[in-house]
Amino acid sequence: MVNFGSIFVSEAFGTGLLILLGAGVVANVLLTKSKGFDGGWLLINFGWGLGVFAGVYAAYKTGAHLNPAVTVGIAFSGAHEYATGIPITLGNTVAYLLGQMIGAILGACAAYLAYKRHFDAETDGAKKLAVFSTGPEIRSYGWNFLTEVIATFVLVFVVLAFGHTPTGLGPAAVALLVVGIGASLGGPTGYAINPARDLGPRIAHALLPMNSTATAEPERVAVTVGAGEGAAAREQAERQTAPAQPQRKNSDWSYAWVPVLGPLVGGALAGLIAHLVL
Amino acid sequence: MVNFGSIFVSEAFGTGLLILLGAGVVANVLLTKSKGFDGGWLLINFGWGLGVFAGVYAAYKTGAHLNPAVTVGIAFSGAHEYATGIPITLGNTVAYLLGQMIGAILGACAAYLAYKRHFDAETDGAKKLAVFSTGPEIRSYGWNFLTEVIATFVLVFVVLAFGHTPTGLGPAAVALLVVGIGASLGGPTGYAINPARDLGPRIAHALLPMNSTATAEPERVAVTVGAGEGAAAREQAERQTAPAQPQRKNSDWSYAWVPVLGPLVGGALAGLIAHLVL
Amino acid sequence: MVNFGSIFVSEAFGTGLLILLGAGVVANVLLTKSKGFDGGWLLINFGWGLGVFAGVYAAYKTGAHLNPAVTVGIAFSGAHEYATGIPITLGNTVAYLLGQMIGAILGACAAYLAYKRHFDAETDGAKKLAVFSTGPEIRSYGWNFLTEVIATFVLVFVVLAFGHTPTGLGPAAVALLVVGIGASLGGPTGYAINPARDLGPRIAHALLPMNSTATAEPERVAVTVGAGEGAAAREQAERQTAPAQPQRKNSDWSYAWVPVLGPLVGGALAGLIAHLVL
Amino acid sequence: MVNFGSIFVSEAFGTGLLILLGAGVVANVLLTKSKGFDGGWLLINFGWGLGVFAGVYAAYKTGAHLNPAVTVGIAFSGAHEYATGIPITLGNTVAYLLGQMIGAILGACAAYLAYKRHFDAETDGAKKLAVFSTGPEIRSYGWNFLTEVIATFVLVFVVLAFGHTPTGLGPAAVALLVVGIGASLGGPTGYAINPARDLGPRIAHALLPMNSTATAEPERVAVTVGAGEGAAAREQAERQTAPAQPQRKNSDWSYAWVPVLGPLVGGALAGLIAHLVL
Repeated sequence: MVNFGSIFVSEAFGTGLLILLGAGVVANVLLTKSKGFDGGWLLINFGWGLGVFAGVYAAYKTGAHLNPAVTVGIAFSGAHEYATGIPITLGNTVAYLLGQMIGAILGACAAYLAYKRHFDAETDGAKKLAVFSTGPEIRSYGWNFLTEVIATFVLVFVVLAFGHTPTGLGPAAVALLVVGIGASLGGPTGYAINPARDLGPRIAHALLPMNSTATAEPERVAVTVGAGEGAAAREQAERQTAPAQPQRKNSDWSYAWVPVLGPLVGGALAGLIAHLVL
Repeated sequence: MVNFGSIFVSEAFGTGLLILLGAGVVANVLLTKSKGFDGGWLLINFGWGLGVFAGVYAAYKTGAHLNPAVTVGIAFSGAHEYATGIPITLGNTVAYLLGQMIGAILGACAAYLAYKRHFDAETDGAKKLAVFSTGPEIRSYGWNFLTEVIATFVLVFVVLAFGHTPTGLGPAAVALLVVGIGASLGGPTGYAINPARDLGPRIAHALLPMNSTATAEPERVAVTVGAGEGAAAREQAERQTAPAQPQRKNSDWSYAWVPVLGPLVGGALAGLIAHLVL
Repeated sequence: MVNFGSIFVSEAFGTGLLILLGAGVVANVLLTKSKGFDGGWLLINFGWGLGVFAGVYAAYKTGAHLNPAVTVGIAFSGAHEYATGIPITLGNTVAYLLGQMIGAILGACAAYLAYKRHFDAETDGAKKLAVFSTGPEIRSYGWNFLTEVIATFVLVFVVLAFGHTPTGLGPAAVALLVVGIGASLGGPTGYAINPARDLGPRIAHALLPMNSTATAEPERVAVTVGAGEGAAAREQAERQTAPAQPQRKNSDWSYAWVPVLGPLVGGALAGLIAHLVL
Repeated sequence: MVNFGSIFVSEAFGTGLLILLGAGVVANVLLTKSKGFDGGWLLINFGWGLGVFAGVYAAYKTGAHLNPAVTVGIAFSGAHEYATGIPITLGNTVAYLLGQMIGAILGACAAYLAYKRHFDAETDGAKKLAVFSTGPEIRSYGWNFLTEVIATFVLVFVVLAFGHTPTGLGPAAVALLVVGIGASLGGPTGYAINPARDLGPRIAHALLPMNSTATAEPERVAVTVGAGEGAAAREQAERQTAPAQPQRKNSDWSYAWVPVLGPLVGGALAGLIAHLVL
């Protein structure tokens, strides 16, 4: 029997892995001195997509929602179960959502630890936040909201269609779908398409220490000698000519509702329309 | 039973998703300030291929043609059905083609909405058209036509071969095929390989409002503070030194026949030859 | 029954598709004004890998060797059949090899036609040859030969291992393998790993007209107006200041034995060792 | 029956292929004049992931651990067998670990031979080492260790979850997982996530001749004429103005314990937690 605790643990583990790998790839591409620095948008898309892939295996026995928009979409689709043997009840819904949120916060913390020294070395606070949570390139709450609704609709609608289609792909199907949504619809807002994916790491960002120690403890950051050394040294020199100023951490809470409500609305719409069409 | 209406809805949904993701990835790579800006050709190939992937799931019950060249190719291949339970009749053919065209137009409109602010901020009209429809790098109608014939032949011939080959890939097979055709044969014309994919969005481009509001309403475009801000500010400054001139929208109708007729000829040839060879 | 003619046609079609897409992706990345210009090594790897993918579907009924090194490897592995119902006889071996060679020549011609205007516009003869055939970055016949032996050993050994492993991937497995070999072992010589893949297109290169018409018929090359126009115009201007000199076509026959013998030796070794190990 | 010798051979072949392709892709991206030079992080991720793919096929009958962290993880997970018919005994454990180490050393030697001329032409000793073994971007033993623990935990935990999930992907599943871990968690240390993957090639690096012959035998390095020639010539000129100094080979043994102990701890933790959660 699948009870509250086992739903919570399964979804927390799966969502934690998703966020660990998802935040990880953004850290890899954005943070100073990382090996994947400036690695491109497709790298980010594969990192997130394969984060979903890993997370789905870990949470397979609860259907691996990993995303409140998926949970809501299934509820609106007229289904009777969230996964085999898990009826749609208030208790189970809470177990899913709580597991997703807690898992997302812990996954973000794990990504922070994996990239600890790169966070320390990074002086641009906006990049640090971008590792954790999404932000729009052109800020316009209404249009940003609509972009999230559309992208999440695609995610949840196609995930619901998976159930009607025979395939041997298993978890790779949703992974590829997420790669595609990121490639195609991630341009304006960074594709949260998942309230837990955005809000959980934003809470982690608010809680974790984020002051750059690049100036505070320069003697402990020993840059590896090797390829790219010249560029690193030049960057370091440039930073030293600009006086280091204490940065106030900004978790951009004014935007935080968009990647929560947008995906929930998109997921609910997808559930309703899938109920009619599929 | 699968009737006219359900064929229409299925193909419209599937083709709509295909175009939403396909036009989306081009918008992401081409439009100013998008997160995937200048993301490279492989990113575009994956965006379109995974657009097919999503669309095929949504339209699975009608065999997910999503493309008049596939519908025509099946008709020329000597098959008796478009998909299980859907005989090849004039009425069903019209349902497929109409669903594909209407879906393509609506999908293009959805991509426009998802990237609304980026269309507003874009001052280069040629890029806006390129999000919707294909255009050749070296204009030469005859050779461009031949390129589309060849590329569509590959698509439809291999799709027809899928039916003769056991595999557990399902919709991922055609997605990978489209990634490959784009990577390999998309260089000269941008691989329409689908009349609906090109004509539907071109109609949408002609109908949608496309005047840049970058100069008309500068106060409403608030650029996000963060990474890349300097570059954005510089671009903005450059645009302001060059006086904004009203651009006439140009949907390049003189080229529009090439990505319609080329794929239809390629699809029909593939059907005929598959009939002989497979 | 599978006879000489049907083996020939199947392998010719499959190898033709492989070379069309493989040469196509190189044309896309190397030739002037192509949309995938400078698209990177991974793009080339995916183009060739998915060319194999398409070709395998087309030639499924003959086991889709598409490569004399695979045919030779199977013969050396102790197997009794090239594919289900096709015994290893001299006649069948000739049918495989002849189909592969003729298919490779025709596939190269199709790629030439698909990129005709881009070949016309290209002034660098070395790039034109590189679309068709491989060449080493550091010329050293012995070491280049060894690189081809090693890379082809990996291809044929793992393909022979496929038969011992349950999987639902079908043709995607060999496609992924070829992406991997290209990414990892293609650096020194451009990974022919297939005598037909290199020799067939080299013959096509020798036969096809390859004089640049960029200066001969400038009035017929109308560059599309749009994105990148400035850069194209600048390039054109630079070419006009340097007086156009007639280029002698060079198919680099002195290197041609390396990508033929290397893969044959690698394939035979893989067959022998697979016979012992698997 | 699967005995010591056949476990050893199977794991050695599989791990050898993994390292051949893995070290190969790094050589392709890092070494002077390679066709994939500067090909980006995603190219490296695919090379390693598909190296796993190839290796898993070759070692399928022993469950294809290819990695002491996987072997240790399975032992800690409460399983009774390493693979079907192979009980967890001291003898079998030694056969796995020895096969992995010897295979890794030989695979690294094969990659060296495939790129022999590019090693000769390379003047930067740090790049040569980076082809073989991992190194951190920001040296900090404790944090580097933690990064390897986290990344290996993900690998082994999800691999153990594969056994609980139906899928037709076969060896592609672990390949995709490794692509994802590299994309997301490879930024700080280069993702050893496998003691044999790092220590084996480091031993090979210490044993193989690594002096640059670029200055010693310049007459034997004939650079291919073609694309990029200008840049190559310029590089060569620059090297000649700087007097060639004999480089002492440095295999960075002080770091070597991190990518050995980190993965072992991560794998053991994954086994313990998988035992509790899955």
